[in-house]
Amino acid sequence: MAPLGIGLIGTGYMGKCHALAWNAVKTVFGDVERPRLVHLAEANDDLAHARAVEFGFEKATADWRALVADPEVDVVSVTTPNQFHAEMAIAALEAGKHVWCEKPMAPAYADAERMLKAAKAANKVAILGYNYIQNPIIRHIKTLISEGAIGVVNHIRVEMDEDFMADPDTFFYWKSELSAGYGALDDFAVHPLSLLWYLFGHAEAVIADMAKPYADRPLKEGGRRPVENHDAANVLMRLGGGISAVLMANRAAWGRKGRIALQLYGSSGSITFDQERMNEFELYQADRRTTEQGFRKILAAPAHRPYDRFIPAPGHGLGFNDLKIIECRELIRAISGEPSSIVTFEDGLRIEKSVHAMAQSYHQRRWIEIA
Amino acid sequence: MAPLGIGLIGTGYMGKCHALAWNAVKTVFGDVERPRLVHLAEANDDLAHARAVEFGFEKATADWRALVADPEVDVVSVTTPNQFHAEMAIAALEAGKHVWCEKPMAPAYADAERMLKAAKAANKVAILGYNYIQNPIIRHIKTLISEGAIGVVNHIRVEMDEDFMADPDTFFYWKSELSAGYGALDDFAVHPLSLLWYLFGHAEAVIADMAKPYADRPLKEGGRRPVENHDAANVLMRLGGGISAVLMANRAAWGRKGRIALQLYGSSGSITFDQERMNEFELYQADRRTTEQGFRKILAAPAHRPYDRFIPAPGHGLGFNDLKIIECRELIRAISGEPSSIVTFEDGLRIEKSVHAMAQSYHQRRWIEIA
Amino acid sequence: MAPLGIGLIGTGYMGKCHALAWNAVKTVFGDVERPRLVHLAEANDDLAHARAVEFGFEKATADWRALVADPEVDVVSVTTPNQFHAEMAIAALEAGKHVWCEKPMAPAYADAERMLKAAKAANKVAILGYNYIQNPIIRHIKTLISEGAIGVVNHIRVEMDEDFMADPDTFFYWKSELSAGYGALDDFAVHPLSLLWYLFGHAEAVIADMAKPYADRPLKEGGRRPVENHDAANVLMRLGGGISAVLMANRAAWGRKGRIALQLYGSSGSITFDQERMNEFELYQADRRTTEQGFRKILAAPAHRPYDRFIPAPGHGLGFNDLKIIECRELIRAISGEPSSIVTFEDGLRIEKSVHAMAQSYHQRRWIEIA
Amino acid sequence: MAPLGIGLIGTGYMGKCHALAWNAVKTVFGDVERPRLVHLAEANDDLAHARAVEFGFEKATADWRALVADPEVDVVSVTTPNQFHAEMAIAALEAGKHVWCEKPMAPAYADAERMLKAAKAANKVAILGYNYIQNPIIRHIKTLISEGAIGVVNHIRVEMDEDFMADPDTFFYWKSELSAGYGALDDFAVHPLSLLWYLFGHAEAVIADMAKPYADRPLKEGGRRPVENHDAANVLMRLGGGISAVLMANRAAWGRKGRIALQLYGSSGSITFDQERMNEFELYQADRRTTEQGFRKILAAPAHRPYDRFIPAPGHGLGFNDLKIIECRELIRAISGEPSSIVTFEDGLRIEKSVHAMAQSYHQRRWIEIA
Repeated sequence: MAPLGIGLIGTGYMGKCHALAWNAVKTVFGDVERPRLVHLAEANDDLAHARAVEFGFEKATADWRALVADPEVDVVSVTTPNQFHAEMAIAALEAGKHVWCEKPMAPAYADAERMLKAAKAANKVAILGYNYIQNPIIRHIKTLISEGAIGVVNHIRVEMDEDFMADPDTFFYWKSELSAGYGALDDFAVHPLSLLWYLFGHAEAVIADMAKPYADRPLKEGGRRPVENHDAANVLMRLGGGISAVLMANRAAWGRKGRIALQLYGSSGSITFDQERMNEFELYQADRRTTEQGFRKILAAPAHRPYDRFIPAPGHGLGFNDLKIIECRELIRAISGEPSSIVTFEDGLRIEKSVHAMAQSYHQRRWIEIA
Repeated sequence: MAPLGIGLIGTGYMGKCHALAWNAVKTVFGDVERPRLVHLAEANDDLAHARAVEFGFEKATADWRALVADPEVDVVSVTTPNQFHAEMAIAALEAGKHVWCEKPMAPAYADAERMLKAAKAANKVAILGYNYIQNPIIRHIKTLISEGAIGVVNHIRVEMDEDFMADPDTFFYWKSELSAGYGALDDFAVHPLSLLWYLFGHAEAVIADMAKPYADRPLKEGGRRPVENHDAANVLMRLGGGISAVLMANRAAWGRKGRIALQLYGSSGSITFDQERMNEFELYQADRRTTEQGFRKILAAPAHRPYDRFIPAPGHGLGFNDLKIIECRELIRAISGEPSSIVTFEDGLRIEKSVHAMAQSYHQRRWIEIA
Repeated sequence: MAPLGIGLIGTGYMGKCHALAWNAVKTVFGDVERPRLVHLAEANDDLAHARAVEFGFEKATADWRALVADPEVDVVSVTTPNQFHAEMAIAALEAGKHVWCEKPMAPAYADAERMLKAAKAANKVAILGYNYIQNPIIRHIKTLISEGAIGVVNHIRVEMDEDFMADPDTFFYWKSELSAGYGALDDFAVHPLSLLWYLFGHAEAVIADMAKPYADRPLKEGGRRPVENHDAANVLMRLGGGISAVLMANRAAWGRKGRIALQLYGSSGSITFDQERMNEFELYQADRRTTEQGFRKILAAPAHRPYDRFIPAPGHGLGFNDLKIIECRELIRAISGEPSSIVTFEDGLRIEKSVHAMAQSYHQRRWIEIA
Repeated sequence: MAPLGIGLIGTGYMGKCHALAWNAVKTVFGDVERPRLVHLAEANDDLAHARAVEFGFEKATADWRALVADPEVDVVSVTTPNQFHAEMAIAALEAGKHVWCEKPMAPAYADAERMLKAAKAANKVAILGYNYIQNPIIRHIKTLISEGAIGVVNHIRVEMDEDFMADPDTFFYWKSELSAGYGALDDFAVHPLSLLWYLFGHAEAVIADMAKPYADRPLKEGGRRPVENHDAANVLMRLGGGISAVLMANRAAWGRKGRIALQLYGSSGSITFDQERMNEFELYQADRRTTEQGFRKILAAPAHRPYDRFIPAPGHGLGFNDLKIIECRELIRAISGEPSSIVTFEDGLRIEKSVHAMAQSYHQRRWIEIA
């Protein structure tokens, strides 16, 4: 396969993360062509050029449509704010590019649907940046479950918590506007939902409660403004096979920084994981005499593929950015027509459908079945 | 005050635990009269006499009514199976005794109401054995909350999990019969509810999901029998002051042995606790520069009263049975008319009301407001 | 066997702890006679009588020799400051009593030797209060080692740390006087040494470093006084079978409250334990595929005997004082001529011999072989 | 500054790690010139060319001297086995290149001395790859210590453990030959020593014990061969300012995968860290009332510079390889004449001097003072 030509729109944190991945994927994995970092788009020309130098791209533009039209570009990384995803991803797909779009798809469900439609029409690879599923530990958990290591899973708890909205004195900003979405549900819950989907499939029924820890927030210019969405959400869920699940998401949870805590209970054991300690997980198996049964803390190791591509020794630890490199490799695999672990636009749309159902269940104070 | 005369009905685990407490309370606390262990009742005469010797009681009987009628008995510990609580507690109260009854009050709400009525009529101290609230750590958490150490609490999660029902091959026994109650809800959830009540008051609205990890269980005599109640329950709750809470209870959670895990989130910090490590808690306070903010693991210490009555050095650890000794001291305090930390029949009835509302919300698939 | 008559000398923390144990041992274990709490001695008459009431003893005296002479006393608990141990224990032995003496034996090695001699001459049970070895978890670790669960042990690390001497502004008091002993070595190291002895036998060669975190301390009356002994000690050791060990003891280690941390490395696994979480231990066994190898955190459970005598459910937790009850049961077992887990004066003397060798190795800056 | 031309000798794990760092340093840090990956050397031509493609280098050679002579190369990364370091690093320095050499310098102290001499003569930047000191957490610990956050440090414990030599059935291979060095001491202890040096300076006096967990190992061809060096080493140390320290290193410690555990005790607090959880550390400060004192677990955050250059959100986690990128940035800083955190050949030589003194102290069974 010829080297893929890469276009990158947006150079915030996720843009940088994509750039790092495109730079590193060949060195880490070896068995791909080194991508050509062709074109980078940013809001203005100066920044675009500065970032192109920083991130190692050949061309820079303030006009993302020029990037999309660039024949040397094969794949477009879309890392701009959520409200631009639909327009850019659709344009890229229509221009015949593969698309690697950051999550979530779009604030409005209809836009997300249009994105999926465009992907189908273009017949190109279109994936979402749900990188937590790329953690070798998560992959191994999937293997363990499929092997029956904890029997048949019957109960799940998942928590996603950070504390960037925890301070009641933080000034009101766009994250608290209704136009930014439901709050914890779409800002946060989509990540745990991507993990649940990856491990168990999609939710079938949900009922949510949503809460505003703070009714209003101070304005920089003085006075206060009511908070329009919900920093906390708690959801009872049913997945396929009768699995009962609880999802808790809170972006006002003091002390939590990047917590995505999973508890998986099965008929012969259980598994726990917390993203804040992303290089380990715990496994309990009821297969010993009771005097020695306990949760085993297992550190990431080369045998948890593809950890070995990064480090040949166990217990040394991958970083968050490394997950993006793995995701990049999976994307290339998908483009090459190989089996891959990715979240397609189709999967992503279903995740967002769940989120909308949760919000609806809250407003209607009743269980919602998801078709 | 003259020494209290003690009667003990039932000598299973909780009976032994009461006996240990009555034996130790004077030595530990010093500032009470040493109780007289007067009368012990068990199902048959031989066992009653054997246990009386073991536990240090003067008299033994197979007729609990004789114990209740004994004029030398001032307080009756009721530690028999739940279905006997109402009859015994009411008889004791009617005989003018104080009552220390193990939780829960009674399987049927009406019986629990009768117990409360009897307590009011007798004007005696009538408390329930919710000993987890007696942990010096839990008491200190209450102090911290009242001091505003984590600001205004807005979100709570509480999990209670064990694994004695986790093995699908365990034979069907009475715990899985409907007559034994809802399952996780009344068997387990009452404990976390006692903690929530102690710290924050009672639930105002609930919606629950309940699940059967295993539809049926093998019978010793061959064949299988459907499980009639639910080993797992998950509840969305609202407490006073708009606190959103999630309660999860599961007696089929492999690897959990005595877990009662609390997460309390407030406007300026958070607190976590797990009964499996009952001698420590974690406190996060947002009062440092960000480079040093973190959860502090705090070990039980003499300054967490009344830990000091047991051990004068920090970090050495109380045990589960010690909580019962503290509870015993609180009971004596209540009998003496002093302020005390106890769960009265009135408080207990409200806890059970919540449980019934949860079960109702599950069956009706809707939120239930609790008057 | 007739009930044992108990005499207790000293009613500080350890005195109370003995009293609690003598009060509880029958109720907990059932299979012994309930001891008679006969006689209690304290420094003055008022306190002696007050404590006798508190602790449930029949008689009280300010003259411990009267207690020792009391024909109703069969066993004497010696819980006074270390400098009195020898005189009291020897007197009790000479009066034909069994002795339960708190550790260590005596500040001077010669006195400890006299104690052993007296025990031998009296042919009575004479044990030391090294209660950490009574933890069901520690007992189970011994079982695991003897079963070969971690293969042949070849390396050990043990740390004992508290922080009551950590504050440099704490006034000088007797603990810092040379007459109080070496400091960390005899105040602390004896506990881990009792564990090592219990699990592996005695040290064969040692070299120690000792340190004074603070050269002097303030005096209440003004001015400062040089610290005369060492709050920290670190020791390289060799045990039998070529086991290399490191012992670290520090009573000026901020943040440590009751830490006794063991790391045991063997040819097929390893074990860790920390007294601050005395109801759990960790076990690593190299008997799985590498993707699932990890340290298992195992909670104390009924199958770890005699935890079951206290609580029939796993994960609920014993307390520090419960270890004394177990020790008391072992003492009774020894008195009855049954096999028991105790630290005899003979074992204790050897522990103290190690400590003196360590101090010597520090002053002579060389390895010392222990005969 | 013009872009640095990079030469890389060796493409094992560390070679790859250097390549990843050279690839990423510009994208991560922005404020440097993107290095030119000029020349790569490997043992044979085919592998050299394959790796050059993988790692993104322009030229490839089987003759490392050609690389050293390449005028386009400004910096040479030396990542070959230890016995080649001296020859290659000296040649590179003599050719006027800066050198980034993996630790340790050389098996023989005389060779290490020659390396330092060459660095001085060349007046070029010559550093060693002790990347653990680059962890933002370790840097912040240094800041905390210099700020007096835990007062004056008086006691240190450091453990470095892995288990790749723990299996007695592992065949004998070169790591167990005397020619490979002392064993745990130079293979492992140098890492903790680099941390101690970075935080506190060099050791002043040492006494070590070394141990062979297994006297011999099986040979692939049958039979057994005696192990010639020591998989475990324990060292008592004194650092400047009277700090007492204990260093434990063990490459046969089952269950340990990449453990470098630090305990730092000071006059007003303490700090702990473990490389297996490299994104967190614990801080205890004695500045609260006793009811709230505890070890705070602090997660890596942007304010721990330069974590922010990788990730703008706290708690997401760096990986082991990221430390190499930071080290690379520091090297560039040093080459630019800016202040930097590096381990120069001078520092490295002193570390190795300590190691040799430790080995000497073991063989002579006495304390060794290090000039």
